[in-house]
Amino acid sequence: MKATPGQAPLPAGATIGILGGGQLGRMLSLAAARLGYRCHIYSDHSGPAFDVAARHATGAFTDLDRIGEFANAVDVVTYEFENVPLAAAAAAERVRPVRPAPLALKVAQDRLEEKTFISRLGIPVAPFAAVNAPADLDLAANAVGVPGILKTRRLGYDGKGQARVANASDLPRAFAEIGRAPAVLEGLVCFEQEVSVLIARGLDGSCGYYDIPVNSHEGGILRRSSVPSKLSDKDQQRARDIARAIAEALGYVGVLAVEMFHVPGASEPLVVNEIAPRVHNSGHWTIDACAVSQFENHIRAVAGLPLGDTARHSDAIMDNLIGADIDRVPRLLREAGTCIHLYGKNEARPGRKMGHVTRLMARGTA
Amino acid sequence: MKATPGQAPLPAGATIGILGGGQLGRMLSLAAARLGYRCHIYSDHSGPAFDVAARHATGAFTDLDRIGEFANAVDVVTYEFENVPLAAAAAAERVRPVRPAPLALKVAQDRLEEKTFISRLGIPVAPFAAVNAPADLDLAANAVGVPGILKTRRLGYDGKGQARVANASDLPRAFAEIGRAPAVLEGLVCFEQEVSVLIARGLDGSCGYYDIPVNSHEGGILRRSSVPSKLSDKDQQRARDIARAIAEALGYVGVLAVEMFHVPGASEPLVVNEIAPRVHNSGHWTIDACAVSQFENHIRAVAGLPLGDTARHSDAIMDNLIGADIDRVPRLLREAGTCIHLYGKNEARPGRKMGHVTRLMARGTA
Repeated sequence: MKATPGQAPLPAGATIGILGGGQLGRMLSLAAARLGYRCHIYSDHSGPAFDVAARHATGAFTDLDRIGEFANAVDVVTYEFENVPLAAAAAAERVRPVRPAPLALKVAQDRLEEKTFISRLGIPVAPFAAVNAPADLDLAANAVGVPGILKTRRLGYDGKGQARVANASDLPRAFAEIGRAPAVLEGLVCFEQEVSVLIARGLDGSCGYYDIPVNSHEGGILRRSSVPSKLSDKDQQRARDIARAIAEALGYVGVLAVEMFHVPGASEPLVVNEIAPRVHNSGHWTIDACAVSQFENHIRAVAGLPLGDTARHSDAIMDNLIGADIDRVPRLLREAGTCIHLYGKNEARPGRKMGHVTRLMARGTA
Repeated sequence: MKATPGQAPLPAGATIGILGGGQLGRMLSLAAARLGYRCHIYSDHSGPAFDVAARHATGAFTDLDRIGEFANAVDVVTYEFENVPLAAAAAAERVRPVRPAPLALKVAQDRLEEKTFISRLGIPVAPFAAVNAPADLDLAANAVGVPGILKTRRLGYDGKGQARVANASDLPRAFAEIGRAPAVLEGLVCFEQEVSVLIARGLDGSCGYYDIPVNSHEGGILRRSSVPSKLSDKDQQRARDIARAIAEALGYVGVLAVEMFHVPGASEPLVVNEIAPRVHNSGHWTIDACAVSQFENHIRAVAGLPLGDTARHSDAIMDNLIGADIDRVPRLLREAGTCIHLYGKNEARPGRKMGHVTRLMARGTA
């Protein structure tokens, strides 16, 4: 699908509407402000983005009238989380351009659709099979092999809605654990590391790529992203090509994150795990290590501006501050080369992303 | 004067009140957001800071009741322009801590007081003499020498309220030109370049210094600041010592800018031009070239947090976008290594600061 060229960029002072009010919306708003734009946030609850936007509205994502009013008050609509209901995105799109186009939401909201979409592009994904009912379990295990991971098709994030399957007899327990929701059984990929490509695609179809971070997770939650990776130039190129193929197939405008498993030396060294049709936690280091961050490039893209320089001026290690990690802040505040970002959340619940910290180092010293 | 140690830092989620709603307030708000703080802006007119703050209030700076209400709604008060009326600062201080302490306003608002204060610290300033009435003109010219510059004591900024004096017979015209306001006649300093020290001083009295930028002005307005300067280590140390002596004498908390003339090889190679008790245009490059910007360090100081790292990771050239310069933005958006900051002002009047652009270069290549 082609992006639409030739549309006039939003003038300074225009208003960007953001569906979702979390920390990603907050950092998008801060980036929009740098470019002279105002932001208007729509969310079903008060969130970190509200405090830094010119306007905000609280309403259900199922209240399509309110979504329409919201869209009417802005110049373009974007989103900061992939579970925006398709009906909400469609309601906004009847009034204003929605970027990225809602197709990206449709694909990303359903693991089965996502894997099918990507594999039809000739891009490797982990072996997978649909599980809609107990009767599908054995069939899926035979097709995919075990051990594997049973994942709900919808509404999974940060490791939620997933159950490991050690052997075939585990399957009923795992299916019960994820609430017997429609699911996908995934085969395990013996990867060396997890990486992600952060691609920005402009309204004119031009693409920019950030350096590829290596990501580590704990309990399904991203803990650390660091650049540079040790990927060979060839593997990096392959990773970028994969991300571009997906972005183009989606007619994507904005920043897209493509999480991949890296299997060095394999005939297909990069296997796509999942996509996130939005700015991504593994790109937070770009705020401090690049002239133009992932957040600014997302705003540039949805505003129809040319993309900015994605080169990194420094090596970087980004650590999330999750739950009680927030207690490390007093010490972090005194560290050299350390950029602290707190999201203004009041309560530090376990697993809750409270902020992140990026350590900068001269290039080549990380 | 000693800063007060041992006060507890503001917790995340606390609210910082900012007197003034211009671009400096805007960039302070963006920096406060990174640290998880909320901002509340008070100004006598709607301004660029309103769009990025959790709250704002419009009221006269002479309305001390409203200033008191404003202070009551925040945890600490700071300011983004040096012409905050002393009565307003005092009204705020009756309710909440005001940082920097209003003494800095008192000194910076009156050129005569400023020069007297600084020279009493044994720090060189340009020769100066007070001019309150036409009868003082000849006396002042004899004391200071001409050519010189006649400057109003109060409310001068960006080259306003100044008149050049080529010779003694020029004095009556120059005095008329500045409206016969109480003034100071300053002798010219034969400087090689203008520099500024951006010093951050914490609540505990600790100090941090940014690399010293070289500044160039046109028509009294800053056009460009770049780092590094070519100042010798010794001159840089002298410049920092001067800034610290002034900050300490003011009991200062926050970022203070000290503009200086550099006269290489002179017995006093650094002569103070003026101070600005606030974040400063010549420090805007720190947003993109340092882990912790002048804005964040100002917020850290007024919030009672430890100061952050002031080291620069990149060389930088910052150019203001003034008036019609805004038309350069479409081209600038495509430049590598270029960080664009627009202030969200609607109308590009001549002389109006619309934004700035910082070009980053690897250290040692500028």
